[in-house]
Amino acid sequence: MESQLRFAKEEFAERIRRTKELMDHRGIEVLMVMDPGGMNYLSGYDGWSFYVHQGLLLSLNDDAPHWFGRKQDSNGTRITTWLDEDHIHGYEDFYVQSRYTHTMRYVAEVMDELGLTKKSLGLEMDGYWFNAKMYQELIQKLPGARLMDATNLVNWVKTIKSDGEINYIREASRICERVMQTAIDNIEVGVMEKDVASMVTAAQIYGTEEYGGSSPAIFPIMPTAERTSTAHMTFHPDRKYQKNDVVILELAGARYNYNSPLSRTMYLGEPPADLRRVSDVVIKGLKDTLEFVKPGISAEAVEERWRSNLVGTGIEKPSRVGYSFGLNYVPDWGEHTVSLRPGDKTILKPGMTIHFMPGIWLDTYGFECSEPFLVTETGCEKLIDFPEKLFIK
Amino acid sequence: MESQLRFAKEEFAERIRRTKELMDHRGIEVLMVMDPGGMNYLSGYDGWSFYVHQGLLLSLNDDAPHWFGRKQDSNGTRITTWLDEDHIHGYEDFYVQSRYTHTMRYVAEVMDELGLTKKSLGLEMDGYWFNAKMYQELIQKLPGARLMDATNLVNWVKTIKSDGEINYIREASRICERVMQTAIDNIEVGVMEKDVASMVTAAQIYGTEEYGGSSPAIFPIMPTAERTSTAHMTFHPDRKYQKNDVVILELAGARYNYNSPLSRTMYLGEPPADLRRVSDVVIKGLKDTLEFVKPGISAEAVEERWRSNLVGTGIEKPSRVGYSFGLNYVPDWGEHTVSLRPGDKTILKPGMTIHFMPGIWLDTYGFECSEPFLVTETGCEKLIDFPEKLFIK
Repeated sequence: MESQLRFAKEEFAERIRRTKELMDHRGIEVLMVMDPGGMNYLSGYDGWSFYVHQGLLLSLNDDAPHWFGRKQDSNGTRITTWLDEDHIHGYEDFYVQSRYTHTMRYVAEVMDELGLTKKSLGLEMDGYWFNAKMYQELIQKLPGARLMDATNLVNWVKTIKSDGEINYIREASRICERVMQTAIDNIEVGVMEKDVASMVTAAQIYGTEEYGGSSPAIFPIMPTAERTSTAHMTFHPDRKYQKNDVVILELAGARYNYNSPLSRTMYLGEPPADLRRVSDVVIKGLKDTLEFVKPGISAEAVEERWRSNLVGTGIEKPSRVGYSFGLNYVPDWGEHTVSLRPGDKTILKPGMTIHFMPGIWLDTYGFECSEPFLVTETGCEKLIDFPEKLFIK
Repeated sequence: MESQLRFAKEEFAERIRRTKELMDHRGIEVLMVMDPGGMNYLSGYDGWSFYVHQGLLLSLNDDAPHWFGRKQDSNGTRITTWLDEDHIHGYEDFYVQSRYTHTMRYVAEVMDELGLTKKSLGLEMDGYWFNAKMYQELIQKLPGARLMDATNLVNWVKTIKSDGEINYIREASRICERVMQTAIDNIEVGVMEKDVASMVTAAQIYGTEEYGGSSPAIFPIMPTAERTSTAHMTFHPDRKYQKNDVVILELAGARYNYNSPLSRTMYLGEPPADLRRVSDVVIKGLKDTLEFVKPGISAEAVEERWRSNLVGTGIEKPSRVGYSFGLNYVPDWGEHTVSLRPGDKTILKPGMTIHFMPGIWLDTYGFECSEPFLVTETGCEKLIDFPEKLFIK
């Protein structure tokens, strides 16, 4: 079959090399990767098959990871990855959601064939895709293995993006600009919220005249009124925009699952004084903080700089104000590595992509204005070009 | 705040009562529900906040479940659920993706306050949302609890739909008909795949003139050509439809997260004889099997009837041919309860909604034609009205 690889084989080899360095330093001989973003990163695998159990097994002694998954999905591996037949292991359908057997028993058999059952085995213990039952089954079936926590190991490797990856994130950013403009152009008092949400999702997939988008890792977050007082609600499918609505827009573009997210806030009518004030403080702090960002400073120093802008304003922002993002599937475009918050000692390096996201949620409404940025050799570069202001209609 | 509950409180009370019956019969005193579909089912909670740890704790001795989650999401509970303040527990932001503490330590503290630490505790061990690390933390923090497997417990309760739920699934079905028609009307040789995918996603959210849709639990599966030879690929964002493409369409409508899925297949040109033959066999078997379905027969008997239609045709279908669906979030609209496959002894009952989905994947392409149906008092009712045929353009 024709391969639909998105990167050169040499780039995958480099990713494997960097992953093995981290494995070696932690004493992990075999790594099981079940996060679909991590699977894509190391193998190219791309498909909505992660609702059944699948993963990669990467051994320090092999140049390529082994894919395991449902047999009916294995042609997806032949189409989207650089793996050869020896590295593709499809299980029969009776394993799927079975009450009598378990996919991890199949995985243990594959590991036995490969001579990997007596090794230290790194597992994504605190990830989305490695559940408690899988862990119980592996404990039972691999008594000779040393099970270790390798949560986010590949995500840390992914945190520094290559030029090819940055190119996709730039394309995703172009899509995101159009998506956000679509929302702002079409939100009006009297228009159904779902009609605008429909245009927003269409813009996410349409992309540009030249290239298409892909489904972002989070659905369009675009709540109104009191629904803006909390962080993760979407449009109301049966409601019209009303006078004096606050509308929060947290929307992304995505290109081959590389996400680029952005937040803005709109007000329909004459904004109350406290919303204007929150907006002014946040946007001033945003600009000041972005000027401060450069390689060599820590993630917590960025948050500290942001927070210094709030002193004396009466505004508090108790949650983290940003996170690393990139190649991710549902449910999150965040990479769970770098967080802009107190205590995060990560030193910023060129090639990191971070969503600086100082959302403020008050009792009855919220305000968001964010910027995704790329850490460069000398500072940072905003990935998206979109006005930083409270949009008023 | 104004409640945006989708069902009467009495219906939630009935769901709780049925869940407690199952808990009691299994000897589970406290149930932890982390699946967002299950959380919504019992409490009404709705938001894209499941990318951080959240859940419900339902005790046999309480009429209402306790919600726990990120503090900034707790207003979402006040807006979308029927829970009172005593049942809402928001954790501070430093718990989020922390390398130093864990959300399950917070949960253990809440359980301690509620006097629930010495009970038998049911956990969704093999679900998407209860990971291995959570399990490790609970073992450590709740030495007096008896941890039990309660995978899919709420999903089994959910499997029989109420009239109100069926109403939402019917609305989702109306949306799905429009979504599928949009795809079939717009797929043409020379059109970019992403342009049609964009219209499809727009139709999913637009819904109808009267009401809006919500994001289905699976993105649009609409592969072409050799990408149809595997089960879960989507459109190619940079490719145009070509002459002699097979196009598989597995698309859903959703209404308040109640999904209604449907599959059809299209051919652009003169279909090869073997595709026509597969199509004829599958559609004949589909119709025959649907006539056979009625309450009182087993799930495996449905599959056996389907398979009897394949005898002598040379076509094999080794995977399961259907599953229960309904109120679900990403990554799956399937409920992981009833499966139409050998060995599933579930007896069909009125109110079950099942996607009969006999997909065939050959070496180089696939064919799908499916029907979601409702089990009625006397037989079954197709939820979607859409021609059963191989679409040819």
